[in-house]
Amino acid sequence: MNAIVARAHNFSAGPAALPEEVLREAQEELLEWRGEGASVLELSHRGKAFMRLAEEAEASLRRLLAVPEDYAVLFLQGGARLHFALIPMNFAAGARADYVLTGYWSEKAFKEGGRISEARVAASSKHSRYVTVPSFSAWDLDPGAAYVHLTPNETIHGVEFHDFPDLGAVPVIADMSSTLLSRPLEVRRYGMIYAGAQKNIGPAGLVLLILRRDLLERCPATLPEILSYRRHAEEGSMLNTPPTFAWYLAGKVFAWIERQGGLEEMERRNRRKAELLYAAIDGSGGFYRNPVEPAFRSWMNVPFILADPSLDELFLREAQAHGLLALKGHRAVGGMRASLYNAVPVAAVEALTDFMGDFARRHG
Amino acid sequence: MNAIVARAHNFSAGPAALPEEVLREAQEELLEWRGEGASVLELSHRGKAFMRLAEEAEASLRRLLAVPEDYAVLFLQGGARLHFALIPMNFAAGARADYVLTGYWSEKAFKEGGRISEARVAASSKHSRYVTVPSFSAWDLDPGAAYVHLTPNETIHGVEFHDFPDLGAVPVIADMSSTLLSRPLEVRRYGMIYAGAQKNIGPAGLVLLILRRDLLERCPATLPEILSYRRHAEEGSMLNTPPTFAWYLAGKVFAWIERQGGLEEMERRNRRKAELLYAAIDGSGGFYRNPVEPAFRSWMNVPFILADPSLDELFLREAQAHGLLALKGHRAVGGMRASLYNAVPVAAVEALTDFMGDFARRHG
Repeated sequence: MNAIVARAHNFSAGPAALPEEVLREAQEELLEWRGEGASVLELSHRGKAFMRLAEEAEASLRRLLAVPEDYAVLFLQGGARLHFALIPMNFAAGARADYVLTGYWSEKAFKEGGRISEARVAASSKHSRYVTVPSFSAWDLDPGAAYVHLTPNETIHGVEFHDFPDLGAVPVIADMSSTLLSRPLEVRRYGMIYAGAQKNIGPAGLVLLILRRDLLERCPATLPEILSYRRHAEEGSMLNTPPTFAWYLAGKVFAWIERQGGLEEMERRNRRKAELLYAAIDGSGGFYRNPVEPAFRSWMNVPFILADPSLDELFLREAQAHGLLALKGHRAVGGMRASLYNAVPVAAVEALTDFMGDFARRHG
Repeated sequence: MNAIVARAHNFSAGPAALPEEVLREAQEELLEWRGEGASVLELSHRGKAFMRLAEEAEASLRRLLAVPEDYAVLFLQGGARLHFALIPMNFAAGARADYVLTGYWSEKAFKEGGRISEARVAASSKHSRYVTVPSFSAWDLDPGAAYVHLTPNETIHGVEFHDFPDLGAVPVIADMSSTLLSRPLEVRRYGMIYAGAQKNIGPAGLVLLILRRDLLERCPATLPEILSYRRHAEEGSMLNTPPTFAWYLAGKVFAWIERQGGLEEMERRNRRKAELLYAAIDGSGGFYRNPVEPAFRSWMNVPFILADPSLDELFLREAQAHGLLALKGHRAVGGMRASLYNAVPVAAVEALTDFMGDFARRHG
């Protein structure tokens, strides 16, 4: 069954491509898993078999990112969006919080944050239409803020940054939905990292949180239990039934990354893929264009426009016919976007750049 | 691949058994779905293919339950537990709300509700250790309550009821996690029905809401968007990325129920399964015992104890060896529990009752 399947190159921004090996393993054991007499979909999260899986997945993630012992790892639900609200509820209810705006998603986080906390813009590149990151000297940081919120990779605007000013005692909380696991990371620079799974981690419906345990003491005791990070940490992400299949697939993705050579190897591949695609864009003589300042171009999400937007539909139709899927840009910025997450092989980007070159020759 | 798999009879309370047909379909298309060139796990929720799936699933659910036009159907995340908090946040922030306590889960809902609203116990069978449902004459209802919260099936205590007093203009909000789709239902009696998927609907990580649209006007505009039922309804459950694979599997489960003959057929089978198991318990001469008042015995979750608890471990070990899984009772009540959701066939219950009879003969 499915020995031959017609899988195309998938550049979706999320839910996104998963490693084919992971899908094949999941397929093989979808009816019966590890001799349990049932699918992993059908097992209690409190049973021995699932508990072991859960621990293995966490251990694998901790190895990949060298997560320090004093950080908790949580497997929760709700998408990053739920956490736009839960972060201020847990850490800044009625208090001040700083936000750095570098695109669509940091704006959304700021707006939700403002419904709970005294959210304040510490820096913004909105005036540039989010094609850059505010220079450190322009960051107006509040030393009394409960946290500073960053979005190190903007999935829609294709802006990425991994350096930031020394923030003293103010914890950095970073939405890394579209960049976590794409390269090594110094976890200790962050108070909390969170990421929706549907990019580099697994299927939609799972959110990873990596957070310094001492911050959990700030979670108000008056919060409903289900909104409290402290309660989730105390219960090992099993305060309620977790999204078990998503957790299982995420564990398989972590193991796949380890087999490939870890985050150093992901970095090598992702750098290569990004270089290939940006070179094709920049070398097209203006046929294609990416507006982002080169130092802040995302490795993961590459938006580009055609000089002649009347060719957009033809480009997408022909790309699809060449087995190049999901290249339409987000409605907020238009044009095209190729997302190059870990599961997208270099060969897929080569197929894309070949097609782009050919298309430009025929229509340039 | 997997032509022969060793699947046992699975009595898990949730995540629970899924129809084998559904799992086989999902397995068949796990690498490539509907000619899309990718797994359904890898597709954007905003693409045509997934949007069609989402609409098909909702239409199927609406047919099954004859959901009136003026009710919205939402596919959300967070487990029923998240909604213990969101229900008062949306409908009773700072206002009064009534709760009827009939077991472990209604107590949890009440406690979370009390952190947001002036939650009040309108009736409780706690004094009986939750083996019955308070008689209607004892319900002390507040005509000014924002809602009355009911738990028509208590998954742990095995108490079920589907009738309730006339509540006038006060909307009934019902946690039907473990009973929705087990039999026909008059949706119009409820202001809102909600259910975690991992019993009769699909995998963990999805929650269904069926709610009267006029109630959405009560959702405070000051709520963070992601916590607002009004915003979720306005965006067709796609305010953020939904748990796409869970939605897909739920759609397959709905279609499977329709093929089986709909909720009338589920009711016939579920009644038969419950009758078989309760008859085996009651006819065991006291070897097994279910404490619940017969009129309120759950069709879905059947807790039972052995007169001699020193046999518990042996019972579980032998059951497992007979291919009868997940019979251990919840830690809150101990003993055994068999959950008989839609995907558990009559033959599984026959195998269980045969084993129980044999075990009692050997150890009675």
